[in-house]
Amino acid sequence: MATPLTQVVDIDPTLTQLRELLGERLTTSKAICERHGRDESYHPGAPPQAVVYPRSTEEVSTIASICAAARVPMIAYGTGTSLEGHVAALAGGVCVDMMQMNEIVKVNAEDLDVVVQPGVTRKQLNTHLRDTGLFFPIDPGADASLGGMTATRASGTNAVRYGTMREAVLALTVVLADGRVIRTGRRARKSAAGYDLTRLFVGSEGTLGIITEITLRVHGIPEAISSAVCAFDTLEGAVNTVIMTIQSGVPVARIELLDEVQIDAVNHYSGLSLTVAPTLFLEFHGSEASVAEQAQTVGALAADEGGREFAWTSNVEERTTLWQARHDAAYAAKAARPGGQLWATDVCVPISRLAECILETRRDVDESRLFAPIVGHVGDGNFHLALVVDPDDAEEVARTKALNERLIMRALAMEGTCTGEHGIGYGKLEFLHAEHGEAVAVMRTVKQALDPHNLMNPGKVVNV
Amino acid sequence: MATPLTQVVDIDPTLTQLRELLGERLTTSKAICERHGRDESYHPGAPPQAVVYPRSTEEVSTIASICAAARVPMIAYGTGTSLEGHVAALAGGVCVDMMQMNEIVKVNAEDLDVVVQPGVTRKQLNTHLRDTGLFFPIDPGADASLGGMTATRASGTNAVRYGTMREAVLALTVVLADGRVIRTGRRARKSAAGYDLTRLFVGSEGTLGIITEITLRVHGIPEAISSAVCAFDTLEGAVNTVIMTIQSGVPVARIELLDEVQIDAVNHYSGLSLTVAPTLFLEFHGSEASVAEQAQTVGALAADEGGREFAWTSNVEERTTLWQARHDAAYAAKAARPGGQLWATDVCVPISRLAECILETRRDVDESRLFAPIVGHVGDGNFHLALVVDPDDAEEVARTKALNERLIMRALAMEGTCTGEHGIGYGKLEFLHAEHGEAVAVMRTVKQALDPHNLMNPGKVVNV
Repeated sequence: MATPLTQVVDIDPTLTQLRELLGERLTTSKAICERHGRDESYHPGAPPQAVVYPRSTEEVSTIASICAAARVPMIAYGTGTSLEGHVAALAGGVCVDMMQMNEIVKVNAEDLDVVVQPGVTRKQLNTHLRDTGLFFPIDPGADASLGGMTATRASGTNAVRYGTMREAVLALTVVLADGRVIRTGRRARKSAAGYDLTRLFVGSEGTLGIITEITLRVHGIPEAISSAVCAFDTLEGAVNTVIMTIQSGVPVARIELLDEVQIDAVNHYSGLSLTVAPTLFLEFHGSEASVAEQAQTVGALAADEGGREFAWTSNVEERTTLWQARHDAAYAAKAARPGGQLWATDVCVPISRLAECILETRRDVDESRLFAPIVGHVGDGNFHLALVVDPDDAEEVARTKALNERLIMRALAMEGTCTGEHGIGYGKLEFLHAEHGEAVAVMRTVKQALDPHNLMNPGKVVNV
Repeated sequence: MATPLTQVVDIDPTLTQLRELLGERLTTSKAICERHGRDESYHPGAPPQAVVYPRSTEEVSTIASICAAARVPMIAYGTGTSLEGHVAALAGGVCVDMMQMNEIVKVNAEDLDVVVQPGVTRKQLNTHLRDTGLFFPIDPGADASLGGMTATRASGTNAVRYGTMREAVLALTVVLADGRVIRTGRRARKSAAGYDLTRLFVGSEGTLGIITEITLRVHGIPEAISSAVCAFDTLEGAVNTVIMTIQSGVPVARIELLDEVQIDAVNHYSGLSLTVAPTLFLEFHGSEASVAEQAQTVGALAADEGGREFAWTSNVEERTTLWQARHDAAYAAKAARPGGQLWATDVCVPISRLAECILETRRDVDESRLFAPIVGHVGDGNFHLALVVDPDDAEEVARTKALNERLIMRALAMEGTCTGEHGIGYGKLEFLHAEHGEAVAVMRTVKQALDPHNLMNPGKVVNV
């Protein structure tokens, strides 16, 4: 439920000032505000009182100064694909839609980095990079904005090899709550110069400032890429194969688990005819020789665990179909229960505990009589239940909530985290406390120091 | 020069309380205090008024509570191998020597992580890990404590492949300025749960809290390791080989540059007979096939740039000799000018600017008539001048200072950093400003919020 925060009483003078700056790039349209106040999750939305569309860091800075002077909240917005209510305007205020700042500012091919505005999406970047031999690996499924991905510390299928947004971001330009503009780093690969402000803003979910420019690491497109699908007799066999692959140090680029419920949904949604069984989707990157070596190693591990033969492809179209199906897994789950609402869980545990965590969870799902396909970036120890819930069935919602809580507590007991990649938003405030204890007080201290009037996406990550 | 900070007037009541807690693990011996107030750099030291030796997080917490109540500064201390005056007790106070907290708490071999106390050194950890098939790659040369390495965001020769302490640290236990104890993360590989406090404390140089436990990623010892030495006709050829190696995506584990001045010093100090020419030291990790493939690629690049044939070895003893010589480079430089003092610079630039930066710097060194071997972790764009200066020659000191300033400004103009791995200490306060501008104000805000009385290593990183 939305935390009750004080609403701005009279926003009109502020909107007048903002309209002078932005003209038609400010709207109070009810429909547009509604759309900007909710994300793809089951969490109730809350519309902002206006939406603005800045086109430069300077404009964002001026917007922040105007809002700060009148104590009006600001909520940065990208593609609205978050999953924990991140964009809900819990205290009203102005939604700052960053999607008109969608310029790829610079490609430093020789240094394997790029400079982008926050409204650039990951697919837009990769299309732009195509001719350079470079690519940006981080891939949360949705074609999210890079600003949003930075703000939520996103990861996804390639993180097992290439890391998350934490590793990908070299430097940021950020507009602070009072309108000041800072640059958090430079383009050197490493630096020991002062506090790591870059990493402080990565994952801060718009609560410490608004990101207006991002310097990102990119990678050379590997010489060889091949994808494979492998069905298993048991869920346990599939998970054990993952664990041994990671422990053997195979630099697998993607290793994704879909249980039989998820495979069935994917077959229907994406028109595939995969064997309905616990399945791994894999991808190998490297030289021809290295890709072959990796595949051989994983193939042998899978065979020992009841894995059937790899169905291979290095054909680009077939690979795209496969990974599009993987990315559509949540939509496929939703389509399997028309009218239902997606409720995605997101725990991540140390790899040694993964089998135990997934198998216990699977039993719990079965006992809970809920529709909850399992899908996940298992190479990182991260997996999701793509629950689809009837929002009008209070009892089912209660059972779902209880299942999610048990799952999180199970992961925490295994030294894991309540969220591998979705973030806290306002949906996981209580679990942040369960996970971090006294450290949440330190987060709150940082928040209060940088945003003393609680104007930046209030009510998210930490309550102040 | 040491920033003048207010000294504690009467520390005796505090020492009485601390002595009750620690007994003989508190000393006010002048010699010991002197030794704890200075590091391996040319920066003037400043002795603390006492040194304490805690043995647990709880003791550190109690020490912090006692010191905080009396407004007594606390300076965490490891092996004293820092290079920017990090440990100087500029405002007096108590040095907290962490070296009795040297337990390896847990090896989670299946998860490729370990939990250690901060006084464990990197060599101690690797000796302990030897039988597990794992190793900890980060290697700044000195056998530093892992607490100190975390606090300074250390890196070193393997960072080009395995990252720096920023990537290696999964979680920390930290005692705050008021004695509170927090845990910044868990053992999951990734998490999107709240602000990244782990990264905030990595590189904070003891100014935000005292690190009392560290969870670190470790890696499987590669199947094959081979090292090589390659001399070049020109400095430019050596640097270009580095640039092309990195840009080709070869996952080289180490690629280190030593210019002919440095090679000459190393030959004398370590009893080697390397060709006196600009030289790369390399190491390749991987499967037998992959190591061979990497070496072939780099060999071809080197040949095009005037590199002579690789002198190879996969013999453990020979490799150890080679890398020990590399690690002793600074001591070798110092030995080449008896009575001189080491003055190590530490810029890091984007790889595309590396040749330009090194060649301009080399010209500048020659014109400055200074003894300044070049040595560095060039795969990251990071290189050092291992200047050796006559401390009694004010004019030479002035020339050195001016050279260092020009070098830093050159690196900043190339979008680089004033310090790749040594940190700020109190030696680079002004350069932090030159590099980060308004962002330093944000660092100061964070410092003031977490340490309002400026008790944690005062006068370092940011002046408050």
